[in-house]
Amino acid sequence: MVVGCIPEWDSKILLCRRAIEPRHGKWTLPAGYLENGETVAEGAVRETYEEARARVEKLTPYALYNICYVNQVYFMFRACLVDKRFKPGSESLEVKLFAENEIPWESIAFRVLQETLIQYFKDRSTGQFPFHTGEILSNDLVNV
Amino acid sequence: MVVGCIPEWDSKILLCRRAIEPRHGKWTLPAGYLENGETVAEGAVRETYEEARARVEKLTPYALYNICYVNQVYFMFRACLVDKRFKPGSESLEVKLFAENEIPWESIAFRVLQETLIQYFKDRSTGQFPFHTGEILSNDLVNV
Repeated sequence: MVVGCIPEWDSKILLCRRAIEPRHGKWTLPAGYLENGETVAEGAVRETYEEARARVEKLTPYALYNICYVNQVYFMFRACLVDKRFKPGSESLEVKLFAENEIPWESIAFRVLQETLIQYFKDRSTGQFPFHTGEILSNDLVNV
Repeated sequence: MVVGCIPEWDSKILLCRRAIEPRHGKWTLPAGYLENGETVAEGAVRETYEEARARVEKLTPYALYNICYVNQVYFMFRACLVDKRFKPGSESLEVKLFAENEIPWESIAFRVLQETLIQYFKDRSTGQFPFHTGEILSNDLVNV
């Protein structure tokens, strides 16, 4: 199970550029494998600190994506950055806040995160963030 | 990861009495381990058929419970029974529809399912079913 979040600051969100394979150099939301003994929310907080040295709070469950062809389940939260302090952790080359019109859609690391972001901005335009589930059938990015 | 559902029929819900250990003879919602290659919703549908020979549709994500002390995550849906055909599968002694005032609170198999049911009836009294997350710290049942 992979857990992660969309860290929000004003109307921007935090992305990390991967310093590791696969998808070295591509942009990702903070996310990684749930570890033993932690809740899904604790895992998302930990991954955000490891990858972006950022602290998040007020986590709200946002989406579950099934990726059956690799037997993975992604569980994503929305989250608020506690402050504007962040910097690359050991798995990141760069960490940066992006407004919606600045998102590097062609350089997102994984389809599941691209789907999460597309859904997020769609919901944000309505002001409603219901919980979503979906299935990812391939890792090819969609054209946004 | 464990997946399951609350099968609804009119204002009743379907419970199964366990034919297997642990908690032989106690009542449970249909739930079991997610298998490789299936989505969480498919897993919940499969478990419902295996345990109660019942078909469910219109699954809505309802709650995620962390049970860190056994490294489990429960993901529960609400679901609609397709028809009133059900009977015990090989893991059940008995399968039965219960109105809220008939729920055998003292004989629910696992605390996580008791919490799911408490939350469910609380939400039902308001008509709103937001997605919930929670943490289960012990398997002792609460007094309802």
